[in-house]
Amino acid sequence: MVKIIRVNMTTKECLFQDVPAEYAGLGGRGLTSLIINKEVKPTCSPLGPHNKLVFAPGLLGGTTCANANRISVGCKSPLTGGIKEANSGGQPGGHLAKMGIHALIIEGMAKEGEWYQLELEENQAKLVPSTVTGLNNYEAVAKLVESYGKENSYVTIGRAGEFKLTAASIAFTDRELRPTRHAGRGGVGAIMGSKGLKAIIVKPGQAKGVPIKNKEAFNAASKRFSKALTTHPVTSQGLPLYGTAVLVNILHEAGGLPSYNFSQGRFDDHEAVSGETLNQLTSQRGGEGVVSHGCMTGCIMRCSGIFPDKDGKFLGKWPEYETLWSFGPNSGINDIEMIVRYDKICDDVGVDTIDVGAALALFMEAGVLKFGDAEGALKLMEEISTGSAIGRVLGCGASTVGRVYGLRRVPTVKGQSLPAYDPRAVKGQGVTYATTPMGADHTAGYAVTANILSVGGTVDPLSTAGQVELSRNLQIATAAVDTCGLCLFVAFAVLDVPDALTAIVEMLNARHGLTLTVNDVPGVGKAVLDLELDFNRRAGLTNAADRLPDFFLDEPFPPHNKVFYLTDEELDSVLKW
Amino acid sequence: MVKIIRVNMTTKECLFQDVPAEYAGLGGRGLTSLIINKEVKPTCSPLGPHNKLVFAPGLLGGTTCANANRISVGCKSPLTGGIKEANSGGQPGGHLAKMGIHALIIEGMAKEGEWYQLELEENQAKLVPSTVTGLNNYEAVAKLVESYGKENSYVTIGRAGEFKLTAASIAFTDRELRPTRHAGRGGVGAIMGSKGLKAIIVKPGQAKGVPIKNKEAFNAASKRFSKALTTHPVTSQGLPLYGTAVLVNILHEAGGLPSYNFSQGRFDDHEAVSGETLNQLTSQRGGEGVVSHGCMTGCIMRCSGIFPDKDGKFLGKWPEYETLWSFGPNSGINDIEMIVRYDKICDDVGVDTIDVGAALALFMEAGVLKFGDAEGALKLMEEISTGSAIGRVLGCGASTVGRVYGLRRVPTVKGQSLPAYDPRAVKGQGVTYATTPMGADHTAGYAVTANILSVGGTVDPLSTAGQVELSRNLQIATAAVDTCGLCLFVAFAVLDVPDALTAIVEMLNARHGLTLTVNDVPGVGKAVLDLELDFNRRAGLTNAADRLPDFFLDEPFPPHNKVFYLTDEELDSVLKW
Repeated sequence: MVKIIRVNMTTKECLFQDVPAEYAGLGGRGLTSLIINKEVKPTCSPLGPHNKLVFAPGLLGGTTCANANRISVGCKSPLTGGIKEANSGGQPGGHLAKMGIHALIIEGMAKEGEWYQLELEENQAKLVPSTVTGLNNYEAVAKLVESYGKENSYVTIGRAGEFKLTAASIAFTDRELRPTRHAGRGGVGAIMGSKGLKAIIVKPGQAKGVPIKNKEAFNAASKRFSKALTTHPVTSQGLPLYGTAVLVNILHEAGGLPSYNFSQGRFDDHEAVSGETLNQLTSQRGGEGVVSHGCMTGCIMRCSGIFPDKDGKFLGKWPEYETLWSFGPNSGINDIEMIVRYDKICDDVGVDTIDVGAALALFMEAGVLKFGDAEGALKLMEEISTGSAIGRVLGCGASTVGRVYGLRRVPTVKGQSLPAYDPRAVKGQGVTYATTPMGADHTAGYAVTANILSVGGTVDPLSTAGQVELSRNLQIATAAVDTCGLCLFVAFAVLDVPDALTAIVEMLNARHGLTLTVNDVPGVGKAVLDLELDFNRRAGLTNAADRLPDFFLDEPFPPHNKVFYLTDEELDSVLKW
Repeated sequence: MVKIIRVNMTTKECLFQDVPAEYAGLGGRGLTSLIINKEVKPTCSPLGPHNKLVFAPGLLGGTTCANANRISVGCKSPLTGGIKEANSGGQPGGHLAKMGIHALIIEGMAKEGEWYQLELEENQAKLVPSTVTGLNNYEAVAKLVESYGKENSYVTIGRAGEFKLTAASIAFTDRELRPTRHAGRGGVGAIMGSKGLKAIIVKPGQAKGVPIKNKEAFNAASKRFSKALTTHPVTSQGLPLYGTAVLVNILHEAGGLPSYNFSQGRFDDHEAVSGETLNQLTSQRGGEGVVSHGCMTGCIMRCSGIFPDKDGKFLGKWPEYETLWSFGPNSGINDIEMIVRYDKICDDVGVDTIDVGAALALFMEAGVLKFGDAEGALKLMEEISTGSAIGRVLGCGASTVGRVYGLRRVPTVKGQSLPAYDPRAVKGQGVTYATTPMGADHTAGYAVTANILSVGGTVDPLSTAGQVELSRNLQIATAAVDTCGLCLFVAFAVLDVPDALTAIVEMLNARHGLTLTVNDVPGVGKAVLDLELDFNRRAGLTNAADRLPDFFLDEPFPPHNKVFYLTDEELDSVLKW
């Protein structure tokens, strides 16, 4: 039976509820944003008892649909002050869906200093005192696996979440029971920490899987969808062979790879920190290294490689492109093995690699470290787990480093750091950064597709023309994709292969007994965005928050030497329909 | 001749301009807020070249009117993100007025790492390389006095301003050429630092003073105004004998003295940190100590005593009530001599004692220090000047400490810390904190008058009744007082002695050749507030920012055990007319 589980951290009650009609039609991001919109006071203190933390698998989660087991996490963000949805791969999303859990809502707040872990079964949930308090994610998960077993999946926060740092993430275990998958952005880990919830043990047990109203139709559509993913060049070759890091050389070439804290768009040593190098070193070293690794059951794009050290032992997961960027070009560092280590530290202590990498570059901008000082960066990264002042500042992300060090060139929107695509050289991306309700977030409307990759059409990345429509359409589509629980990377195929979207809609219909058409999809995306915009408006975020920092408007960006010159009026038109 | 001086830090040009008609009718806060509203892009990065820093004496500045030589400082605040006016006593306000300087506007930005000082004469202004970079205020001023002489006054920032910390203040020398008077709130010192302006040497020279259109009428009104101040018990006895610290015992008695980070309204050792103790120790020790000291020419209330050490040497100025509160009861510290030392450190490094004191209490809330650890507090305070991470966090004030340490009970509105009157026990003050465009600021609408002191009527501090009107009327009146350059403490007399306001209006008319009546005063105040509210709205601050943190709504406050229960609708009605 599909249900909502409410875990009250104040009273320790775990309540199983039927899904109210109002919450029935959505999943993933659509559902977390709906619940946050309806149940959380927009002006509440994010770290207080009135905030909620919602976990929800998507509408296609738990099925045989490819890449549909993402999990969404929603709350009021302690970083942006607005609504937040961050989603992740790993196993818990699929498990929750199979267990018939429509949403898991964490409410209230444990007493200061008390920590709990949630034992979550199909028909039972129980809060018990945490056995892993003070541990970072790798050690915590290892200990939990020892106690609870390998058949489960695990959701944890590291010490950054315990410290309630605004870049703290929530970790989800992958198929190898490593805490490598993260709901990274917006400080969702701080909210889990604020509740006093250190870990969730997701025990799928004998859960039978999700009911499919029309199995035959579902399977037929599922096959067509898989075919699109296994034939499109990005999803069938680029991602499995090089991970998202395939983009390093591409963005360098395009002059849109922000280097030295967004000072220039090319990085001389780009090859050294590229996906090609990840692939080459992993292939050469062998051992526990893996090229073409899937982070969750049902993944057929397999972008999440495993990076071995010189002896072939696991050193860390393949860093995402955005991680290679933040610690690499943007910090002037060209040592890919060091970047794998920083990434591992982020996974372990539990912080967003984008915001913390951008924060590291700001320490360099402030002169605390020199750009390119890889050893100094390692030392500083190790401070996060200690709880020292400087470590906490770093773990709070770019906006806090900018404030503490009195910096002017702080690349954030709504307090959240811009990722690895400069808005002056990839203008569609700049429009998304400025306007998404999430704070600067590349995934919210990934205009790199048409701006750089000629996927889903072509829009000149340096011109203003077409960027508003591009970002708008992508933001709408993304909200729908995130609602289905689909990995965003399916979009590469969906944008180029019309039948892929048809197949998704047919799967939704077959799974839930609906009669949607392709034309209904934008309406879903708009409805989700409207919920988010409404929350943000009531939380006090106006159009004035939909602006890039001045230096993107003032400083021409080499090599193209353009500034970001969309007007305020253009930005304000993006999410109007 | 009255003029506006524009100092462009980018080009180093100093331009003398006639006062445009639009800027002619206002002074002080009214003028700084008008200029910021008209000339600064509300969404600009506060530390960037598009922000401006405006200094303006009031409409009665430079005259023989008692207590009229305050100076207003305006900018977009790096702390609140909204408009800021912070005003100060000391000598520069009167000097600027006498020199015919209607406003001094600092524009643009020097190159990173370059520091200048402004030599300002009646008919000439010149930027020269700073001779005091890296020095804190006491040393900087001493060196400047050595170079430029004792006949001038000085405006400086300490290292906190150089670091661009969000609690950095701007120091103004008093009559003894000590940098004890500060535009403290909202990080105005960070803006001066961001411009690359380390100091202003104000050289009144032979400036003849301000022209009075009707001297006879002015002098007659001035005398009546002085009489009101020298006969009202607060301004003639309470303030000169005990400084603003007269309030410690009063607020304790009222149960509104926030102690241990706003956990309770009484402090057992209140006597030890009271104005009575300041008076007693100063009188006993003698030497350089002074009871009843005026901070600026023309002051007849003389609240700014000088505190001697055991040997009678200058240890620091008398801390204000809010300073005694923040480092005392709110941090659990009962050692008044230590508090004088913290205050001296704040004056020297150049930070707001309210926000930094509130931040110190948050370090205690976070467990970094124990409440009451006076020695630990001293060590931490000394970190600010070093530029260490922890020192910078402290120097950024309460909201940054709250963020970095993941705290929930962070007493700020619009990022600025609440001062020394708990909004649950002094509800009119809570209304002001929530709604003033300045961020939590007691001076913006000082409801302690009617709530606690029975000045200007009586309004039960624990009830919601009458608080909206009280705060509204006080906010309007204060905006007018700040526009005249009057010390806010004249309000005690003005609220109780009807002729005092009449006298002010007569002085304004006599000075400027106007025909105002007492009934016109609220219109001036409203116009100033409208300019500020308009700027804030365009900067993105909505009603959602006009809220107290949840814990004031959730936690009953001993001894009265009340929460703050004015409704959002009531708060939203305060600044409507």
